[in-house]
Amino acid sequence: MPQYKAPLRDTRFLINEVLDYPGHYAQLPNGGEATPDVVDSILDHCAKLCEGVLAPLYQSGDKEGCTLVDGKVTTPKGYKEAYDQFVEGGWQGLSHPEKYGGQGMPMSLGVFKAEMMGTANWAFNMYPGLSLGAMNTIMLHGTDEQRDTYMPPLTEARWMGTMCLTEPQCGTDLGQVSSKAVPRGDGTYSVTGTKIFISAGDHDLCENIVHVVLARLPGAPAGTRGISLFIIPKFLPTESGDVGEFNNVVCSGIEHKMGIKASATCTIEFEGSRAFMLGPENKGLECMFTFMNTARIGTALQGVCATELSYQGALAYAQERRSMRALSGKKEPDKVADAIHHHADVRRMLLTMKAVAEGGRAMLYHAAKMADFMTIAVEQGNDAERELWDERLGFYTPILKGFLTEIGFECTNMGVQVFGGHGYIGEHGMEQIVRDTRIATLYEGTTGIQALDLLGRKVLIASKGKAIAEYTAEIMKFCGEHATNAKMRPFIVALGKICAQWNYLTLRIAIGARKDRDVVAANAVDFLMFSGYAMMAFFWAKMVAAAYGKLASGDGAETEEFYRAKIQTGEFYFDRVLPRSRAHAGAITSPIKSTMQMPIEAFSER
Amino acid sequence: MPQYKAPLRDTRFLINEVLDYPGHYAQLPNGGEATPDVVDSILDHCAKLCEGVLAPLYQSGDKEGCTLVDGKVTTPKGYKEAYDQFVEGGWQGLSHPEKYGGQGMPMSLGVFKAEMMGTANWAFNMYPGLSLGAMNTIMLHGTDEQRDTYMPPLTEARWMGTMCLTEPQCGTDLGQVSSKAVPRGDGTYSVTGTKIFISAGDHDLCENIVHVVLARLPGAPAGTRGISLFIIPKFLPTESGDVGEFNNVVCSGIEHKMGIKASATCTIEFEGSRAFMLGPENKGLECMFTFMNTARIGTALQGVCATELSYQGALAYAQERRSMRALSGKKEPDKVADAIHHHADVRRMLLTMKAVAEGGRAMLYHAAKMADFMTIAVEQGNDAERELWDERLGFYTPILKGFLTEIGFECTNMGVQVFGGHGYIGEHGMEQIVRDTRIATLYEGTTGIQALDLLGRKVLIASKGKAIAEYTAEIMKFCGEHATNAKMRPFIVALGKICAQWNYLTLRIAIGARKDRDVVAANAVDFLMFSGYAMMAFFWAKMVAAAYGKLASGDGAETEEFYRAKIQTGEFYFDRVLPRSRAHAGAITSPIKSTMQMPIEAFSER
Repeated sequence: MPQYKAPLRDTRFLINEVLDYPGHYAQLPNGGEATPDVVDSILDHCAKLCEGVLAPLYQSGDKEGCTLVDGKVTTPKGYKEAYDQFVEGGWQGLSHPEKYGGQGMPMSLGVFKAEMMGTANWAFNMYPGLSLGAMNTIMLHGTDEQRDTYMPPLTEARWMGTMCLTEPQCGTDLGQVSSKAVPRGDGTYSVTGTKIFISAGDHDLCENIVHVVLARLPGAPAGTRGISLFIIPKFLPTESGDVGEFNNVVCSGIEHKMGIKASATCTIEFEGSRAFMLGPENKGLECMFTFMNTARIGTALQGVCATELSYQGALAYAQERRSMRALSGKKEPDKVADAIHHHADVRRMLLTMKAVAEGGRAMLYHAAKMADFMTIAVEQGNDAERELWDERLGFYTPILKGFLTEIGFECTNMGVQVFGGHGYIGEHGMEQIVRDTRIATLYEGTTGIQALDLLGRKVLIASKGKAIAEYTAEIMKFCGEHATNAKMRPFIVALGKICAQWNYLTLRIAIGARKDRDVVAANAVDFLMFSGYAMMAFFWAKMVAAAYGKLASGDGAETEEFYRAKIQTGEFYFDRVLPRSRAHAGAITSPIKSTMQMPIEAFSER
Repeated sequence: MPQYKAPLRDTRFLINEVLDYPGHYAQLPNGGEATPDVVDSILDHCAKLCEGVLAPLYQSGDKEGCTLVDGKVTTPKGYKEAYDQFVEGGWQGLSHPEKYGGQGMPMSLGVFKAEMMGTANWAFNMYPGLSLGAMNTIMLHGTDEQRDTYMPPLTEARWMGTMCLTEPQCGTDLGQVSSKAVPRGDGTYSVTGTKIFISAGDHDLCENIVHVVLARLPGAPAGTRGISLFIIPKFLPTESGDVGEFNNVVCSGIEHKMGIKASATCTIEFEGSRAFMLGPENKGLECMFTFMNTARIGTALQGVCATELSYQGALAYAQERRSMRALSGKKEPDKVADAIHHHADVRRMLLTMKAVAEGGRAMLYHAAKMADFMTIAVEQGNDAERELWDERLGFYTPILKGFLTEIGFECTNMGVQVFGGHGYIGEHGMEQIVRDTRIATLYEGTTGIQALDLLGRKVLIASKGKAIAEYTAEIMKFCGEHATNAKMRPFIVALGKICAQWNYLTLRIAIGARKDRDVVAANAVDFLMFSGYAMMAFFWAKMVAAAYGKLASGDGAETEEFYRAKIQTGEFYFDRVLPRSRAHAGAITSPIKSTMQMPIEAFSER
């Protein structure tokens, strides 16, 4: 099985030498304490928790899964003890306000933490991850009283939270939500309805679970404009903030899933449960989605986490398994056969995984800076500033979530492929990564939904096509800055080409969409994937430039080998991964008629 | 769950209207009885078995899996009864000689049968499938006595067979095989060794299991030239051909796998088991691989089977699940939302799956003709003819096995994607197809091995680069024949381009490989995938031409809607799937330096 080891050198290279996090933190109102020493220490401690406590439960948690007996969910053996250590370390509140018991660090540190936790054990990470979603929503939209009641136990992780959106008849299409909220006359409501696919909906890790729930008031408008948001705790808090009366929140089933089996996916029945409205009446969807961009960073992480873990497992195996001889001649003549890492095709797979893990990490860590600004604006109650940063972040999130989970899933399959037939066997732990990661392109908005968000909403509607022009201008500015560096020339040339193509494809779609809106829908996923490859190329160029800079100046924190490996991985990305963008460009420049013309009955003509 | 329905119209369209199987059978010595009526009846009966008996066991078999107790493997509930029906129908011997109890039909009918069985229930299909491998090997390399002893019970399916190659230390690299065979002085041998990953290695479906086993004689040369092949029955046959004494063949473990859980994957210990040499001493690998090309058609099928089943499941769901409105406007205004098949991105996924299932089926059915000729040559003992057809088939098989299983696996994931979050839940049966199919790119030679076989052995060494020139000449001949048909023009133009590119890429690699053999290994998988997309384009053009022909003449067996759907699917393939070849061409035309340059220690520099 893969023995997770946190890639701390890569993390530090990114935050200190590529993305200038020290400079970034210095300008944040809550960044003063996030000095390089403190950040270093947090990363080290987090790595220790992840490597020593969470990773060892990865396979056993899958094997055992969660169980539901008499309406109570039990998590796999060791999960409660691991969670207790997580609570004790104060990890849940790392990036939340000190007044609620948090450590008040910038949000980005929470992203670095979540990446490590998610790589060590994604299913475990989902419990605190979902709780963060509930915390952020309550922090932004809750009344003072609601915040005072719920934020401290949630921040201290004595309680946890969930997000209850999906119902049996609807997932993406939340306008169909039918859970009912009836006023009780005392300012509170009584909610009845069935929610499905509720991650961490019930479990035995903590003493109370705070559900954030979409439901409909009597007489509310149909569709998305008639949905309100509610806080529904499993146990009602007492005046003193303790766990009180049971609130008729019943877990009636858990799903038998392909993977993330240690994460309880629950059907939750609210049976006249007492509910507290969160945010304004009928504005539930807006409130629920305020933190969507930040939340999607959390889901996008899964692509990088899975690639990282799969890479670590595959690399170790490739160094020890011996089979055949390299085509260019024996590499280990004294051994029965060459270690498979000498085979070009195995190197192709390892390098693809390495390039995706490190390139994706760079993209996420960059986006996390915007989440820092956005969260500060929330805490300061500065709506204009919050919207500004949310909009900037909003260009990245569909690409991060859609592209990184798609390519991340592919990389988990490469990890299995390196193992050959052994990859298919449970004990090696590689196939589990595939199963665990398959959910990533489905939940929190499928890839198709991310693609429509990017191309339809963000690029064509919100920015009137300018989003790509502005982003590629940023890339070209980088190119200009490095144009005189001969070593950077191949990267600059390739970036110039891909930027031109990105703008051309956007324009082509925009023109086509004037006559036929289906041009947007039919091309959206190809556009998303093209955008992902292009954006990852930019971040690889940044990393390569930083590595060349450190090699030239000799003042980097890392060894020459480290910087050279970065440059070589970047070269591989540009030579061997970036050409995949051509497939998507080729599809986009083909007519959509062949996608739309066949009558639906004809699909069954066979 | 997907309700399997055999796509008989598509099968008949291919065999009667595209590939001229009636004409093909008419020229085969064993094709006289395979008249269109008989073939039709066989297909109908096979569909009935598959839809009514095998498909209903698909999900339950996965859930239950196989169990090993006291050295005995038990298959899931219902498998034995289903197998009995399979035996009773005489399905195992469909394409094997009448003198052994078979029906003497051409081998291709066995391919059509295996496709249906494999789509209905791949794990079940593996039991008789592996047995066919053992039957073919014994039929070709066995002595008269061996054939008389083993072929009748195997053909009647009272006994079954396996292929025992893999050992813990080696899969691909069979030169490392270390199982020992010691002469007993009576012309038989005593074999001791451990074999792993033995599909159908033990089970409760029949009364005896005949293992075909690779082992090494004392003093045999090291490596692949010192391996011999043996027949080792679990129970020694008595003089009268009944099941006799236990032969110390012990199943010591079964694997806990990602999927195909109803197929027992066994560790088999031979503990001084009595063995009968099959074929000449030290020529075991050659004998084992004689039927490899035919066997690989059987594995390649899995890509098409999985895509077909996943398509059927996704299509049914897309017609009934309602979510959001199509971007181009409401399609079902009286419903709460539009059925998701109206969404362009869902159509994209459905059409991709349809194009791959039908295109892949055409490729396989075409290759099956060569298997017909090859099998006849075996039965006639005509080695020259056998080698000729094996060589022709050998160009196809790495593409079929490598490309169709890779893209087939991708299509199973598209099927899940159409279901959204529900695709991740076990009860819908969609995630099972992903898990079951993940093995396909691993066993019987990984994709990397298929790619080396195609590019290294078949294209560069055996044909000195001419294989692609000859194949593209065949495509261009087709293009010439349809050049005056305006409707075919877009297909002809695209085929011309892809043929030119295919030749260019081959030449480029051939030149590069003169200096550096790693150029072959580093480009092999991209070359394989490019070849797959190109070949599938050719078969789609053939199907489109046939459909246009039938529409024009009005004398086809199918409806206009059927032919139009074929043409539209072909258009989709050329517009939206074929551009993927550009990604692979782009990789191949990039330097391999970035794949090979990084020192292996540097992979861990992070």
